[in-house]
Amino acid sequence: MGVATVGVIGVGYMGEPMARNLMRRGLRVLVHSRTAAKAERLIAEGAQWRASPAALASEADVVVSVVCDSPDVEAVYLGPAGVCSTLRPGTICIDMSTVSPQTARTVAEAVAARGGAFLDAPVSGGKPGAEAGTLTIMVGGAEADLTRARPVLEALGKNIVHCGPTGSGQLTKLCNQILCGLNLLAVSEAVVFAREVGLDPAVMLQAVSTGAAGSWAVDNLGPRMLKRDFAPMFMIDLQHKDLRIALTAAEQHKVPLPGTALVAQLLVAGKAAGEGREGTQAMVKTIERLAGMPTG
Amino acid sequence: MGVATVGVIGVGYMGEPMARNLMRRGLRVLVHSRTAAKAERLIAEGAQWRASPAALASEADVVVSVVCDSPDVEAVYLGPAGVCSTLRPGTICIDMSTVSPQTARTVAEAVAARGGAFLDAPVSGGKPGAEAGTLTIMVGGAEADLTRARPVLEALGKNIVHCGPTGSGQLTKLCNQILCGLNLLAVSEAVVFAREVGLDPAVMLQAVSTGAAGSWAVDNLGPRMLKRDFAPMFMIDLQHKDLRIALTAAEQHKVPLPGTALVAQLLVAGKAAGEGREGTQAMVKTIERLAGMPTG
Amino acid sequence: MGVATVGVIGVGYMGEPMARNLMRRGLRVLVHSRTAAKAERLIAEGAQWRASPAALASEADVVVSVVCDSPDVEAVYLGPAGVCSTLRPGTICIDMSTVSPQTARTVAEAVAARGGAFLDAPVSGGKPGAEAGTLTIMVGGAEADLTRARPVLEALGKNIVHCGPTGSGQLTKLCNQILCGLNLLAVSEAVVFAREVGLDPAVMLQAVSTGAAGSWAVDNLGPRMLKRDFAPMFMIDLQHKDLRIALTAAEQHKVPLPGTALVAQLLVAGKAAGEGREGTQAMVKTIERLAGMPTG
Amino acid sequence: MGVATVGVIGVGYMGEPMARNLMRRGLRVLVHSRTAAKAERLIAEGAQWRASPAALASEADVVVSVVCDSPDVEAVYLGPAGVCSTLRPGTICIDMSTVSPQTARTVAEAVAARGGAFLDAPVSGGKPGAEAGTLTIMVGGAEADLTRARPVLEALGKNIVHCGPTGSGQLTKLCNQILCGLNLLAVSEAVVFAREVGLDPAVMLQAVSTGAAGSWAVDNLGPRMLKRDFAPMFMIDLQHKDLRIALTAAEQHKVPLPGTALVAQLLVAGKAAGEGREGTQAMVKTIERLAGMPTG
Repeated sequence: MGVATVGVIGVGYMGEPMARNLMRRGLRVLVHSRTAAKAERLIAEGAQWRASPAALASEADVVVSVVCDSPDVEAVYLGPAGVCSTLRPGTICIDMSTVSPQTARTVAEAVAARGGAFLDAPVSGGKPGAEAGTLTIMVGGAEADLTRARPVLEALGKNIVHCGPTGSGQLTKLCNQILCGLNLLAVSEAVVFAREVGLDPAVMLQAVSTGAAGSWAVDNLGPRMLKRDFAPMFMIDLQHKDLRIALTAAEQHKVPLPGTALVAQLLVAGKAAGEGREGTQAMVKTIERLAGMPTG
Repeated sequence: MGVATVGVIGVGYMGEPMARNLMRRGLRVLVHSRTAAKAERLIAEGAQWRASPAALASEADVVVSVVCDSPDVEAVYLGPAGVCSTLRPGTICIDMSTVSPQTARTVAEAVAARGGAFLDAPVSGGKPGAEAGTLTIMVGGAEADLTRARPVLEALGKNIVHCGPTGSGQLTKLCNQILCGLNLLAVSEAVVFAREVGLDPAVMLQAVSTGAAGSWAVDNLGPRMLKRDFAPMFMIDLQHKDLRIALTAAEQHKVPLPGTALVAQLLVAGKAAGEGREGTQAMVKTIERLAGMPTG
Repeated sequence: MGVATVGVIGVGYMGEPMARNLMRRGLRVLVHSRTAAKAERLIAEGAQWRASPAALASEADVVVSVVCDSPDVEAVYLGPAGVCSTLRPGTICIDMSTVSPQTARTVAEAVAARGGAFLDAPVSGGKPGAEAGTLTIMVGGAEADLTRARPVLEALGKNIVHCGPTGSGQLTKLCNQILCGLNLLAVSEAVVFAREVGLDPAVMLQAVSTGAAGSWAVDNLGPRMLKRDFAPMFMIDLQHKDLRIALTAAEQHKVPLPGTALVAQLLVAGKAAGEGREGTQAMVKTIERLAGMPTG
Repeated sequence: MGVATVGVIGVGYMGEPMARNLMRRGLRVLVHSRTAAKAERLIAEGAQWRASPAALASEADVVVSVVCDSPDVEAVYLGPAGVCSTLRPGTICIDMSTVSPQTARTVAEAVAARGGAFLDAPVSGGKPGAEAGTLTIMVGGAEADLTRARPVLEALGKNIVHCGPTGSGQLTKLCNQILCGLNLLAVSEAVVFAREVGLDPAVMLQAVSTGAAGSWAVDNLGPRMLKRDFAPMFMIDLQHKDLRIALTAAEQHKVPLPGTALVAQLLVAGKAAGEGREGTQAMVKTIERLAGMPTG
């Protein structure tokens, strides 16, 4: 594919480093974001601002969207100045937001009606993965479209997996978030338990990390809990939003997820404590409050 | 340490390969087990049978016990023909069972009263780790005693961590089991969700394994769930027993563990379904039953 | 109020007996239902069929709607042939469905814009209460409008409570459903426990009913569980829908409801088992399945 | 039965009013309590102090014990100066504590070996019921022994139910506590939700109390939550102890109780917050803390 121009819609804390990685590959990058200020650094580095998704889409060979929730994606593609109002036949649209599978299907149909192709391609790896270009990318859509999109995706991530037809990327991401949520709860409970029974929690984490209890969460969220470093790799608000989507999809398919439902409620408790914009590792504070510990 | 003779009490599916690894290091190994038949293979390979813990302890430089629950450990050490009835001063006793921290402290005192040393040293890694000599070993007790015991422990495991005073090995193991339990529930919910929404669960596991959702459980339990391979690496009955100990310790220290409590109840459901002696990965069947799926 | 004509929209298993009670009070009753056949008995008894909510509203002094979920209420009031298209100034609209508080507010505004008044007035008491005219009615809206509506409401229920401004009826109903859900789980767990430990569960219910464990659920759902009478007083599907609305409202207000979230997942399990159209007392079967018991 | 003398062991906040009710019936009452000071008011009213369970049992026709946990009951009956050391043939022993069914069976055997009869007869109704003589009494043991004990029990309670053989009283009480725990959680969640969404929670309680959501807990614990009256009718510490016994019994019979397990963890959270000696209605504070609300 002779990709000349990639349009990136949404250049927040995930989209910005992703757009930067595309520029590093020598691609021409157009950017649009609801909050123009977020694009300033990228523009200083050579990206070109476009005033709307429509303006951006009219020039792009590939559109990459990285926004927040289902209504945002629908606005970006289907709204008055949305991508679908100007999309040229043959354009590939890659939505890398985490949204409902139904939104992916709805937008895919609208894009197809205009002669374009759509991939739902949510990611895992957080801001560090976005910066390093090592994201895991879970792709739903036609195999042929994924083949065409690979040069762009390979600038962004390492483990690019074709999960099935449209929506499958989102569904796989929901599995990812189910796992992340319970693995996070696991570390939170283990760390609080360790401290309360008098263990050195750092030694505990080191001991358990190499065996059957090991996880990315043990290695990455555990130490941050101990350092009281609650800066977001991934925010509680977003983890909660993703589990809400997962639980809704699960209900529709009549799959009970008792553990995930519990995690979702504990994330609500974190939001209630004003920690929604902290990293998910801040869940440890919810368990600490339950245990009557100071969380300061 | 000039260890000549190691006595191993309990040569079941963990203890047998551990005793074998000690023999491979050239140590003289005495064995005792409640069920004598379990020792037959080891005896054929050169181990010597002793009729009771007492008989074994009277000759051993190091005693290693690998039994099941707190009452078993108490019987082995404190019972009528128990280790403490014949223990020679200077002997190191290493209990590698997973039992309550209180049991560790009680037995340690009795051993110390006889002039011996006691380490609580539960392990992680399951039967594969026991066979390969790659167990994670979580040690509670005096640093000096651990130094003396290292030659024996290094025959059994790789990540040997000194967790603190007597009981700390058990407490760390409880953290390990809290993590294992919730990580297991995570994989169970993700796999059932994936199948019910129409994903290929093997592709899903591959996609999530490299990112923030990754865990030992994803890599090792997930594929077994898909292959319907429920042979135990670690049995549901034992995982439940360990979480019972963890929840009891947590209650005593006033630490609420809502996630772990849920896992424990789902393990009870597995036991109720007759799956207590299957591997923990059989928890997927409990979630499948909740989702109205056939589990055959 | 000189109420001459009441229009009832939705004459299913709640609406039908409610319309009948209005006729018994001597009111002229117009009926409309999505499925015309449901109105046949009422028509035979003297009610008059109208072909749409609009047709019905153009003649009614009071409109009573008893439909299922939020989209249904929105269609009835705001749709093409909806109530608001013909509503005469001064008409009182009483929605007795259980829907989201937001739906209540949206419809109330549309009704007010046409010069009408709106009360959200969901009920508790199930089909037996609807038949006996003994429903509990939880009313949101202006006090003055409730005063005007009282003659109609008193034909339908006994405990008529003004809960606050528009939406408050629905919010109170959500509290009601939170309570019903957990009280139901309580009886389900107690009954299964009793049977498994060898008690006569009927004697158990009798013993606990008079003390601090007593509840409507113990008295009404418990005996049905024992008789295996799963005919709906209130369906699992509806209880689940209501808790979904409650959990969504709770999330928006950042209120964690861990118990209610668990109940919702167990209701999903009942739906997965094909029991969605059975009464809520069928939750006992979900707990029985968890306990490995036959549920036949 | 010509009951002349009743010995009451344990005259704390339940036992004291129970002993008083026995005196009101004209019975001669002997008392013993671990803390002698607790008996002072009763002695002033005519009860006679005995220095040990043994001393008391040597004179009593009926022994009534009202202590705390399983080890206490075992000490009272089986300890060095325990009831069984002096028990006369034909004496009826009624243990009204809430303890494990196994303890009831163990003590019953010891009592029978001395020629006595034993009933496990735990109660429901809390301190108000003990004072008013309106307790619900759940009796396990032989029908004939219950018949002989009735005159005493009728001084203490109203709903006296024969639940089955020895241990059945305790098992029924565990059902009672399963129900109380979840009904309590129901009210806690409903009250916090109501306040956070802007309802008047007192109006809410009034609205829901008459319908399918009604319970003793709504009527009795709800208003106390609103008045911030956390004086114990029944303490969190005791409710937690009882659910621990219930969950242990359930595990032994392989009955998963996911709701009860959650309640138990939330009670641990209350204990961690220093509220163990407050009434169970203080659980509302745990939910408030989860919701980020001030609990002062």
